[in-house]
Amino acid sequence: MKPNLPIKHGQNYSFAQAGAWDDLPQHVFQHSRLGATPGKLFLKEALQMSALEISLGSIPPGRGLPFLHQHRQNEEVYIFVKGTGQFLIDGEILNVQEGSVVRVAPAGARAWRNTGSTPLHYIVIQAKAGTLDTGTITDGVPVPGEPPWPK
Amino acid sequence: MKPNLPIKHGQNYSFAQAGAWDDLPQHVFQHSRLGATPGKLFLKEALQMSALEISLGSIPPGRGLPFLHQHRQNEEVYIFVKGTGQFLIDGEILNVQEGSVVRVAPAGARAWRNTGSTPLHYIVIQAKAGTLDTGTITDGVPVPGEPPWPK
Repeated sequence: MKPNLPIKHGQNYSFAQAGAWDDLPQHVFQHSRLGATPGKLFLKEALQMSALEISLGSIPPGRGLPFLHQHRQNEEVYIFVKGTGQFLIDGEILNVQEGSVVRVAPAGARAWRNTGSTPLHYIVIQAKAGTLDTGTITDGVPVPGEPPWPK
Repeated sequence: MKPNLPIKHGQNYSFAQAGAWDDLPQHVFQHSRLGATPGKLFLKEALQMSALEISLGSIPPGRGLPFLHQHRQNEEVYIFVKGTGQFLIDGEILNVQEGSVVRVAPAGARAWRNTGSTPLHYIVIQAKAGTLDTGTITDGVPVPGEPPWPK
């Protein structure tokens, strides 16, 4: 159920307005183990991604993942945007907050929870481990012309 | 120059505290065309990513990218976290704000700018186009045991 996810497609892009972080619970993911899960929005299919799965997540105070999972082939990166929580990885606990970033190899057993009094907002990114050739700006190529705004 | 990026590594993870969004300008990227660029923090190398390049970005009011670029082989996704701006893609302008997500194919000519009165905070994610096999939770595998917190 995605009651409010305006999407626009162009030749080389797809564009979604997912809305403010605090409104994220309007997006409900049907999880095979957890059932209807408000505050989890997967974007790969909607935005026609070919190399990434990205989800925006929001967990209310007092809640956390009730199980551990690992991955078959995908590297995951978790970026915490707002709130405070704990990230459990192979039995070790990391304290997370705004600006915390965790890379997890496929084999890592992971879960996370909200330990604060406000929603915990975060992003989860998946990509197939070992597939990237170049980083920073080395894959970029200049295009002739300039943006139509002051330098 | 990365004056304050605490990083911890484990067998299956790397963990960074990049800090609050408003403090992001403390991270300075040496850009081959723009020179010293405060508010751009690339994370692939620091977090030992194998499938992703991720950068946290902050652009002050009145500023924007002064050039267009495309990519050789990487798909990019831009997630806007705070502030308001414009995203230019193949000559078309998209208005972006908290919760805006843009997927761009390698060939897309892109630039972006801050059009608001507060910093524009955003995340840029790169992965090699066409490499992902599975999305949502289909790559996940349950791990025996449970997190040490109430369900």
